[in-house]
Amino acid sequence: MTGLPPEPFFSGPGLDRADTLRGDAGALQALAAGAGTLQLKWREGLPALTADGRLVWEPASNPELFLGLDGQSARFCTIEEVSADARAVLPHLALLHADDAPVFAAAFSLARWHTRHRFCANCGQLSQVIRGGWSRQCPECGAEHYPRVDPVVIMLAEHDGRLLLGRQPHYPAGRYSALAGFVEVGETLEAAVARELFEEAGIRVRDVRYVASQPWPFPSSLMVGCHATAESDQLRIDTTELDDARWFAREEVAAALAGEPDAPFQAPPKAAIARTLLERWLGA
Amino acid sequence: MTGLPPEPFFSGPGLDRADTLRGDAGALQALAAGAGTLQLKWREGLPALTADGRLVWEPASNPELFLGLDGQSARFCTIEEVSADARAVLPHLALLHADDAPVFAAAFSLARWHTRHRFCANCGQLSQVIRGGWSRQCPECGAEHYPRVDPVVIMLAEHDGRLLLGRQPHYPAGRYSALAGFVEVGETLEAAVARELFEEAGIRVRDVRYVASQPWPFPSSLMVGCHATAESDQLRIDTTELDDARWFAREEVAAALAGEPDAPFQAPPKAAIARTLLERWLGA
Repeated sequence: MTGLPPEPFFSGPGLDRADTLRGDAGALQALAAGAGTLQLKWREGLPALTADGRLVWEPASNPELFLGLDGQSARFCTIEEVSADARAVLPHLALLHADDAPVFAAAFSLARWHTRHRFCANCGQLSQVIRGGWSRQCPECGAEHYPRVDPVVIMLAEHDGRLLLGRQPHYPAGRYSALAGFVEVGETLEAAVARELFEEAGIRVRDVRYVASQPWPFPSSLMVGCHATAESDQLRIDTTELDDARWFAREEVAAALAGEPDAPFQAPPKAAIARTLLERWLGA
Repeated sequence: MTGLPPEPFFSGPGLDRADTLRGDAGALQALAAGAGTLQLKWREGLPALTADGRLVWEPASNPELFLGLDGQSARFCTIEEVSADARAVLPHLALLHADDAPVFAAAFSLARWHTRHRFCANCGQLSQVIRGGWSRQCPECGAEHYPRVDPVVIMLAEHDGRLLLGRQPHYPAGRYSALAGFVEVGETLEAAVARELFEEAGIRVRDVRYVASQPWPFPSSLMVGCHATAESDQLRIDTTELDDARWFAREEVAAALAGEPDAPFQAPPKAAIARTLLERWLGA
């Protein structure tokens, strides 16, 4: 990694999505029946992992969703009722190999979207899987529906060399992380950053900068990591959203990232882009 | 604008969205009945505009969707079957005042989402408007559904000082613009840029940089403008997506932006972030 800034977990190209094949039903059928074709193994609502954190692939007995190509080998998965239990997901992420993370993310979000979007939002009829699972179409009204990708801004606000981090009620004891919120219709990313920081912490910001992005498949977020400069360090915390929010100095952030026992907070885990934002800030 | 890079159309904070009021049914009712409360006027499926391009507001007779606050005045709109006819939308955008563009975008996307998402995608029953129009809930299964915001990457690829621009089949004669495509589940923004440029133009890129973002409310895109460096200028154009794609030199881009009669292409209109990307590239 020397010289290169750390990349968020879930980054990377993953499979060749071979999107032109999606519209070709004959080609998809031939791929599904192909000798080297594999299908993702699910276990208790999550992609199964080997002891060293790699995805498990098995012969394609029910190739419902076309994930893409790994060289000459086509990869599919089934529509699965995925787990949303954080107590199961988080240890799983700690084990997951970084190289397999983008495929994990695509399969998890796609499978989950199908289980929760079986019906046409336009007319209420049962819709059908088309394009290898990359959309659904309603046989009644013809409306086509696409998997959701929900952009979320997640941001470090800086004031006089200190960073604003907050605690959500469900966090483990001691954990502080970057503030975040969904981008709404009619907003730029920059406007969403400013709105969320004002809503949750009562601060006005300027100079919003993009830093990095990350898919976060629980269920279908696109995390957009940003940095902003706060006009003041006077906080007005929205206690319906946050337990607490505080300013941390550089050495406090460094101690937390190093996992020092007397660090003033527990840093977010490696799979979270919030950790990448902190690492990049410290390295800058 | 001196010294500041040009901002995309549809940028800016718009109204104070006052999101904490959305969950407070009593407060919303009081606002809806308030003396200074106004409602957006629709005309033929688009927000009505004055001769100088400002939104038209009228007394709130049917305050269905809470857009936010303008100072002390609450602003609502009705659920409207909006127009998707580009021949109507584009002249409208040319007239729309930049200061009103973010509110136009929010109202248009929100109204359109309600008309196409009346039914619960999880179970097919008719759902109900809640939270001042910022979500819908199913009375049968309890599922809550949020307005879609669909991230799209739109990018300039550069090679040896020249920019790659393409023509979609529906463009007006002579128009070339930045290539674009929807971000998919399991992708970073950077991965989406690389995938789209390879799919549509056959080029591999590195050093993907974020430039600016823009809501594009037809119906609910979030345009994420990027710049990438191409490894080669050898194109392999996907003719199902593009009529053509070509490399343009700096002076050709400058001529197009200046609207010179002998420019080699017609630049995208002021409302498009593609134009902002070209302006910033030229100014850099």
